[in-house]
Amino acid sequence: MKPISEIIRQKPWLGWVFFLITMVVVFFLGLLASSIVERRAEAVFAYTPAVDIDSLEPDNAVWGKYFPREYHSYLQTADTTFRSRYGGSASIDMLKDTPELVILWAGYSFSKDYNQGRGHYHAITDIRATLRTGAPAGNVKSPSPNTCWTCKSSDVPRLISEKGIAGFYAGTWETLGPEVTHPIGCVDCHDPSTMNLHISRPALLEAFQRQVKDIGAVSLQEMRSLVCAQCHVEYYFNKHVAEGVQYLTFPWDKGFTADSIEAYYDAKDFVDWEHAISKAPMLKAQHPDYELYLSGTHAKRGISCADCHMPYISEGGQKFTSHHIGSPLRNVSSSCQVCHREETDKLVADVYERQDKIASIRHQLEKLLVRAHVEAKAAWDAGARKEQMQEILQLIRHAQWRWDFAAASHGASFHAPLEVSRIISTGIEKAQEARIKLSRLLASLGRNAEIPLPDISSKEKAQIYIGLDMKTLREEKAQFLHQVVPEWEKK
Amino acid sequence: MKPISEIIRQKPWLGWVFFLITMVVVFFLGLLASSIVERRAEAVFAYTPAVDIDSLEPDNAVWGKYFPREYHSYLQTADTTFRSRYGGSASIDMLKDTPELVILWAGYSFSKDYNQGRGHYHAITDIRATLRTGAPAGNVKSPSPNTCWTCKSSDVPRLISEKGIAGFYAGTWETLGPEVTHPIGCVDCHDPSTMNLHISRPALLEAFQRQVKDIGAVSLQEMRSLVCAQCHVEYYFNKHVAEGVQYLTFPWDKGFTADSIEAYYDAKDFVDWEHAISKAPMLKAQHPDYELYLSGTHAKRGISCADCHMPYISEGGQKFTSHHIGSPLRNVSSSCQVCHREETDKLVADVYERQDKIASIRHQLEKLLVRAHVEAKAAWDAGARKEQMQEILQLIRHAQWRWDFAAASHGASFHAPLEVSRIISTGIEKAQEARIKLSRLLASLGRNAEIPLPDISSKEKAQIYIGLDMKTLREEKAQFLHQVVPEWEKK
Repeated sequence: MKPISEIIRQKPWLGWVFFLITMVVVFFLGLLASSIVERRAEAVFAYTPAVDIDSLEPDNAVWGKYFPREYHSYLQTADTTFRSRYGGSASIDMLKDTPELVILWAGYSFSKDYNQGRGHYHAITDIRATLRTGAPAGNVKSPSPNTCWTCKSSDVPRLISEKGIAGFYAGTWETLGPEVTHPIGCVDCHDPSTMNLHISRPALLEAFQRQVKDIGAVSLQEMRSLVCAQCHVEYYFNKHVAEGVQYLTFPWDKGFTADSIEAYYDAKDFVDWEHAISKAPMLKAQHPDYELYLSGTHAKRGISCADCHMPYISEGGQKFTSHHIGSPLRNVSSSCQVCHREETDKLVADVYERQDKIASIRHQLEKLLVRAHVEAKAAWDAGARKEQMQEILQLIRHAQWRWDFAAASHGASFHAPLEVSRIISTGIEKAQEARIKLSRLLASLGRNAEIPLPDISSKEKAQIYIGLDMKTLREEKAQFLHQVVPEWEKK
Repeated sequence: MKPISEIIRQKPWLGWVFFLITMVVVFFLGLLASSIVERRAEAVFAYTPAVDIDSLEPDNAVWGKYFPREYHSYLQTADTTFRSRYGGSASIDMLKDTPELVILWAGYSFSKDYNQGRGHYHAITDIRATLRTGAPAGNVKSPSPNTCWTCKSSDVPRLISEKGIAGFYAGTWETLGPEVTHPIGCVDCHDPSTMNLHISRPALLEAFQRQVKDIGAVSLQEMRSLVCAQCHVEYYFNKHVAEGVQYLTFPWDKGFTADSIEAYYDAKDFVDWEHAISKAPMLKAQHPDYELYLSGTHAKRGISCADCHMPYISEGGQKFTSHHIGSPLRNVSSSCQVCHREETDKLVADVYERQDKIASIRHQLEKLLVRAHVEAKAAWDAGARKEQMQEILQLIRHAQWRWDFAAASHGASFHAPLEVSRIISTGIEKAQEARIKLSRLLASLGRNAEIPLPDISSKEKAQIYIGLDMKTLREEKAQFLHQVVPEWEKK
């Protein structure tokens, strides 16, 4: 065989061919090397595996295969051991803590049962267990609509996709019981194709549309709050959207404050329930967490919900967003201390000071509202006419709305202490104004003396006073949990 | 003459003498050089001239010779052009802005005249001009005691040194008129021998002594607030210290909060005046600036009054403390922005937001208090007995005390917004509770209808309603200013 040099000397064009082949090989070797380095870099700094998750996948465990750290931290929302002065991760019987609430919610299901919620992990267990959803069995229906599932489960996006929005809300709560089994999870906030944050619940999108705001134009930082605002908001069930459907609606059209939402409900003559004692046309505030957060100093500084409730943490050299969502007081170093260079004790004391001050005036308002309801009943009993009571009942409605708006929002005493305090102040003024008018009315009806309060020194006594048969309610619930729920789980 | 080398060869000990002399000379040359450098350094970085100021020197101009920059900035407290949303450096007629105040202070001199104060420079001019000090002339005495001069003048340390503490307070206000001519100034806060901060007013020292606190042990940083707390505090005139003397006393023995000071006054059965309309035993809050500042977030972070109200500024390469004491909003870059890296507009908007929220509930309480006083008068007119009114009048006393504590403190809505809001909330509750009891009492006396309010839509109308002859009061004051004051100044 001739040496290559000899061949090239004889056929010079072959030299160019060799040269080109060498260049192409080197080029592809370069591409390969670069790709290996890049993959290694990804493996060190962040997960970006090619995922194979269905766009409506409700099972967090499936997502967890690709995102084990996020998933593992999510599972920690099962924890119930953390306690702070006014909350924590355990269930707290609020009616036992403050029996006045039983009176405030007389005639409404919250008077039966109201616990401080546990972590996202428990969402399905807890909504099944609360007395508020009743004990559907056989022909007995739940008093709640399917709308109540909206914020409890990652099965909801799938069900909405199957049934349409109104179709999902339609029907009583037990009818979708077998279909809703996964608690709040990944798909509620993430698009699995990109893992970007997305809004999966229609009520927020519809509220944005009514305000002609473009959800597509919001920043990632805003999304880090808006995904929470899908559920941690004030809402109501609108019966005028679709026949027979309790349509989940955010009452934001006039603004986000207690005053503007009150005006929204008043303009619609919306009533959650008629109070069993005073007959006032009541509003129930849900948990206007996002609304009150917006009026606080952290929101004004561009801090999102996730910045404090889902701070970045580090494990095995990996930095990732903790999905152990809960009180930042559990983890001051990763939340508060990122910005505030102060000792943990001092920061926690600051939070408690705000909560203490607001708790004191909030509890004062609770006691005044109890009196207002009881005095209104005395006026009816003494023969008051509807037109004499109207202005009084409207004052009670507004006073209790303001109390509830301030009380129902998780963390509001910290998120927006001054706004919450202002709302309670106006509630106190209105509750007392109702009582002034009641005392004049009562005097005109021949009852000019202080109306004695019933004994509501415990939850049990208060529930007896408003005529609740708790034993039966609890027995029916136990039967539901032992007979109906296992059937749901089989399906 | 022999050369030195020859001499030393003959007497070797003389060599050692020369050596020692040279060393000593070089040592002192070193000392001299160091001292020159040091003096030059001082001259560049700070004033430390050897001052020749009497320890009681009341004339700021004398101090100003040695401290021209501080003095010049002090002179700027004469400025009356700065305006903010709720204040500024001009005099503001608060009774004109809020005629309800005339009713709230009926029977007390504040109903005649209450202006937002101007800068320290105007202290003497303004106390002479206010209708509250009356128009002493000939045998007519001022309604105010000499105690009222305490916080107005740098002549006070000298007068206390001459007359003793009680001796200075004794007598009516006009008796020391000719002696008190210099407005608040240097000697009030500085010891001229060292220029250190010092406490010149006895009431603060006495309050510390009663609480067994050592004023000598406080830090410089605390002194930067305590010199202000000599005057910017709640106080009262104790008649039980010395015969016939209205002794200036700080009511801090039970604590600094509105609640604990209220408890202090109640325990002493202290009454500032009997209300002219309701006959309630009233308290007048002065300006509990220091007390409310203590409960706010800035105090908790170790920020002193001077840090924001007298920030360091720079002129001609010199850094010094501005003595142009006033609103930090005038100078956000030297005050807020030292710590808060945010735009001026945003920081000012934050202050106004706090003030707006509190102004709204404070004004609500003002209107409720007017109603309470007017309804109490209606009860008396309808024949109410003293024992029927006692509890009601106590509620009015407490409600108005809380309003006044929140309203009278300069800047409290910013210093401690949540605490101020809490205080107002409790005031609203108490004012309304008084009105509930009043409506029952009125009904029992045959007056079961809303008590109409008088027309108090302007300061003038409100003053007519409470029976003030403003024309005469103003004429007498003008005469005092044109005839008596020039005589004081001659002396």
